[in-house]
Amino acid sequence: MRDLLGIEGMALDDIRSVLATAEEMHEIQQRPIKKLPALRGRTVVNLFFEDSTRTRSSFELAAKWLSADAINVAAKGSSASKGESMRDTLMTLDSMGVDAIVMRHGGSGSVAQAAGWVKAAMINAGDGTHEHPTQALLDAHAMLRHFRAHNLGDLQGKEVVIVGDLLHSRVVRSNCLLLPQLGAHVTLVAPPTLMPPGVGTWNVEVNHDLDSALPSADVVMMLRVQRERMLGGFFPSEREYTIRYGLTAQRLTKLSPHAVIAHPGPLNRGLEISSAAADSARSIVLDQVSAGVAVRMSVLYHLLAA
Amino acid sequence: MRDLLGIEGMALDDIRSVLATAEEMHEIQQRPIKKLPALRGRTVVNLFFEDSTRTRSSFELAAKWLSADAINVAAKGSSASKGESMRDTLMTLDSMGVDAIVMRHGGSGSVAQAAGWVKAAMINAGDGTHEHPTQALLDAHAMLRHFRAHNLGDLQGKEVVIVGDLLHSRVVRSNCLLLPQLGAHVTLVAPPTLMPPGVGTWNVEVNHDLDSALPSADVVMMLRVQRERMLGGFFPSEREYTIRYGLTAQRLTKLSPHAVIAHPGPLNRGLEISSAAADSARSIVLDQVSAGVAVRMSVLYHLLAA
Amino acid sequence: MRDLLGIEGMALDDIRSVLATAEEMHEIQQRPIKKLPALRGRTVVNLFFEDSTRTRSSFELAAKWLSADAINVAAKGSSASKGESMRDTLMTLDSMGVDAIVMRHGGSGSVAQAAGWVKAAMINAGDGTHEHPTQALLDAHAMLRHFRAHNLGDLQGKEVVIVGDLLHSRVVRSNCLLLPQLGAHVTLVAPPTLMPPGVGTWNVEVNHDLDSALPSADVVMMLRVQRERMLGGFFPSEREYTIRYGLTAQRLTKLSPHAVIAHPGPLNRGLEISSAAADSARSIVLDQVSAGVAVRMSVLYHLLAA
Repeated sequence: MRDLLGIEGMALDDIRSVLATAEEMHEIQQRPIKKLPALRGRTVVNLFFEDSTRTRSSFELAAKWLSADAINVAAKGSSASKGESMRDTLMTLDSMGVDAIVMRHGGSGSVAQAAGWVKAAMINAGDGTHEHPTQALLDAHAMLRHFRAHNLGDLQGKEVVIVGDLLHSRVVRSNCLLLPQLGAHVTLVAPPTLMPPGVGTWNVEVNHDLDSALPSADVVMMLRVQRERMLGGFFPSEREYTIRYGLTAQRLTKLSPHAVIAHPGPLNRGLEISSAAADSARSIVLDQVSAGVAVRMSVLYHLLAA
Repeated sequence: MRDLLGIEGMALDDIRSVLATAEEMHEIQQRPIKKLPALRGRTVVNLFFEDSTRTRSSFELAAKWLSADAINVAAKGSSASKGESMRDTLMTLDSMGVDAIVMRHGGSGSVAQAAGWVKAAMINAGDGTHEHPTQALLDAHAMLRHFRAHNLGDLQGKEVVIVGDLLHSRVVRSNCLLLPQLGAHVTLVAPPTLMPPGVGTWNVEVNHDLDSALPSADVVMMLRVQRERMLGGFFPSEREYTIRYGLTAQRLTKLSPHAVIAHPGPLNRGLEISSAAADSARSIVLDQVSAGVAVRMSVLYHLLAA
Repeated sequence: MRDLLGIEGMALDDIRSVLATAEEMHEIQQRPIKKLPALRGRTVVNLFFEDSTRTRSSFELAAKWLSADAINVAAKGSSASKGESMRDTLMTLDSMGVDAIVMRHGGSGSVAQAAGWVKAAMINAGDGTHEHPTQALLDAHAMLRHFRAHNLGDLQGKEVVIVGDLLHSRVVRSNCLLLPQLGAHVTLVAPPTLMPPGVGTWNVEVNHDLDSALPSADVVMMLRVQRERMLGGFFPSEREYTIRYGLTAQRLTKLSPHAVIAHPGPLNRGLEISSAAADSARSIVLDQVSAGVAVRMSVLYHLLAA
C-alpha cells in the first residue's frame, strides 16, 4: 500500500491486514501509556480544506501515539485562501519532506489527483461525496469487535442497513464498497430524492421503507442529515424526515434483540436519530469513535512503517 | 484528585499539595532543558469553546514539558459548530482515549457537568462566570513566591484587594474561595453595579471606595474590564471608571512600600490599570504568567501521573 | 547570534555559518527518519499576527525535527484580538519560559522592537515590508545547491534578476542585503510605480525592462503580485502587468540555457509567472521550499543549541 485513496482500488488482503493491525492498535489504545516508537522521525500533515475536528483529532492522536510528528494545516489562513492552486499547496508540503498527507477536500476525486503529484503517502480523509475510506474501515472494525465480543462471528452473512441522506454521503459509498467484500449484505434506505444515482450498479439492496428494513438488520447505521439540504428541496421538512426516516424511540422496538445502532457523527439528535437510540445499550456510536483512532494508527503504520 | 472543577470542592490538602509541586515545577521551568518524562504516553486535549491563547498556550506548554501529547480543539470549525451537543463533543473526545480534557466554556457549571460524562480527568480552564481554579492557584503561587523571596512569610494575615468588574469575573470567585483558606484576608472593591449578587455570603470584605482600600493592601489585584460591558450600562463611561476604579499612576502613591500589583491579563492599559502600575517594580503580572505554567504542570502531574 | 532580526545587522560569518549548517540539515531532511535530538527540551513559539501556513509549517517542522517543542499562536483568537498590546503579548509568551519566538507581523521593525523586550531569541518571519531573512537565506541556499550540483560554482559573479512588486516586498530587501555579500550581482526589474523609494542607495542595478534583463540572468526570481494592489492604482491592469512583467512561456526563450527560475510562493499562475515557467525543468521553486526547512533548522540550531 502506497496511499489510501478509497476502498475502491484497495486489495482485499490490504483491507484484512489493516483491520488485523487495528486490533493490535486497539489494545495499545487501552493502555495507560499510549506510545509506540514505530513512526518516530516520520511526519504526518493533516491538510483540511474543510473543517472536521473529529477526523483531524483522530488522525492527530493516531500519529502521535505512534511517535510521529504531526502538523495541522487548515484551508482558512492557508496559501489556498490566497489563491494558490491545490496542486501547488500539495507540492509545497511535499517538498518540505513530509511522509504522509491526510487530506480532506470538497472535491470528489481530489485526493487521488493529489496522489499523482506528491511523493508523500496520501490518505483520503473525505473527498467530496466520493469516499471516506477510514470511516468505512472503522465502521467495519467497530462491528467486528462487537460481533466477536458477543460470539456472533464476523461480518459474514450480517445484514447492515444504512439509512439517511445517501445522496450527499461519502461514508455510504465507502461502506458499500467495503462491507460486501467482508461478507455482509447491505440494504440502503432513503427517500428516492436522496438515493445516489448509480446505486443500481452497487452490490446492495435498495429500500425506501425503513420500517420494513429494520427487523432483519444486524446493524442499523444512521447517517447525518445536513439540515440546510432539507430546505434545499430534497425533502419536504425535517419533521416529516424524522417521521419517515428517523430512528425514533418507537422504531427501536422493531429491531431484533441483538441488533446494534451505528452513526458516524456528529449526531443530529431528534432529527435522524433519537436520544433513546443514540444512548441505548445497543448503540456502538462511541465504539466507532474509539475504533477510529485504532484504524488510523493501523493505516499510518501500514503506509509509513519501514 | 480525579478532576479539577473548581476551588470549591477541592480539599485543602490537595490545594497545598498542588502548590508545593508547583514550586518544584517552577525550578524545572527555569532550566535550559525543560522536559520531564512524567507524563510520557499520556494525552491532554485543550477543548476551548471560547478563545484564550494565554490559557491554552500555558496548558499546552505544561503538558509538553511533562512529555505528554497535547492536541487543541477549538469550537470554531468543530463539530460543536455543526450543532453537536456539548455532551456528544465531550464523549467523542473521551472515547478516543485521551487522559485529560482542559475545557473552557461560556456556561457556568459546564465543566462539572462534563466530568459526569467522561472517563478522562476534567480540568476547568474557565466556565462562564463560575470558576477559573488554575488562575486562582497561580495567583496564590505567584504571591507566595514573592513573599518568600522577600522574607515576608506566606499568605497568612496578608490583605489582598481585588478590584474591578467582579460581577462578570470567574477569577474573583475562585480567588475568594482559595485565598482565605490560605490565611489571607480579601477585600473586594467594585462599583455597586459590578458587585456579584451573593457576595454577602462570601468570606470577604466589601468596599466601594478604592482609595480607602489601598493603604492596607499587601496585594492589589486589578481585574480586566470588558469594554463592551461598560457600554452595556454597568458603568457610565470608561473615563469615569478609570477615575474611580483604575490603578492610576497617582494612586500608586497610596500603596504601602511592600505592596505588589497583580492582574490576570490581558491588560487594558489606561483603563483599569495604568502603564505606570503595570510596568512598575511592584508589578507581579509577569510572575503570574510564569507561575501559570508551573501550576498547570503541577495540576496535570497530580491528575495524570501514575 | 542572539536573534535573527534581518540580514541587515547579521555578520557575514554568521551568514556563512548558517548556510553551511543548512547543508548538513538538508542531508537530515532527506533521511527517512528525520529527527535530531539537538533541541530536546527547548521550546519554539510560532507567533503569527498575519497568516502564513507555508512559513509557519516550515518553522514548525524545523523545530520538531530538531526535537524541540513547538506551539502555534495566531493573532485571530489571541489576546491581541482582545486589545492587548503587542508588547504585552510578547512579554506574556516570554514569561512562560519559551526559548525562541518566530514572529510575523505587519509592522516594519516590529520584530526588532520585540527583541528589546524579551529574553527569548526572536526570529523574524516577515515584518511588514521590511525584511524576511530566512526567505533570503533559503533562496541563497537553494541557488547554491543548484549551482554546486551543476558544477557552476557558488554565487560569486552570478546575475540574479528580481522581478515584480518590489515596493511591497520584504523578500527583495532581504535578498538585496544578502546576495551581494555572497558575490552575486542583483538587478531589480519593476515598473517605476512598484520600485522601492530608497533603491538608489542599494547595492543593486535597476531596470524597468524585463526583456533586456533576462538574457544575462543566472537566476530569475519572480515575486508575487498581490492582486488587490493592482486595483489600488499601482499598475493599470493585471493583463498589462503580465504582458510587461510576467514570466510568460514566450519569455522563457530569452533565458540563457543554464538560467533557473525562482519564486517564494504562493504562485499567481498566469499573472507574474506562467505555468510553463513554474513547471519547467528550470524551476527551482520547490527546491526553495525544501531549502526553507533546512535553513530554518539551521537558524534554530544556531540560536538555541547549547
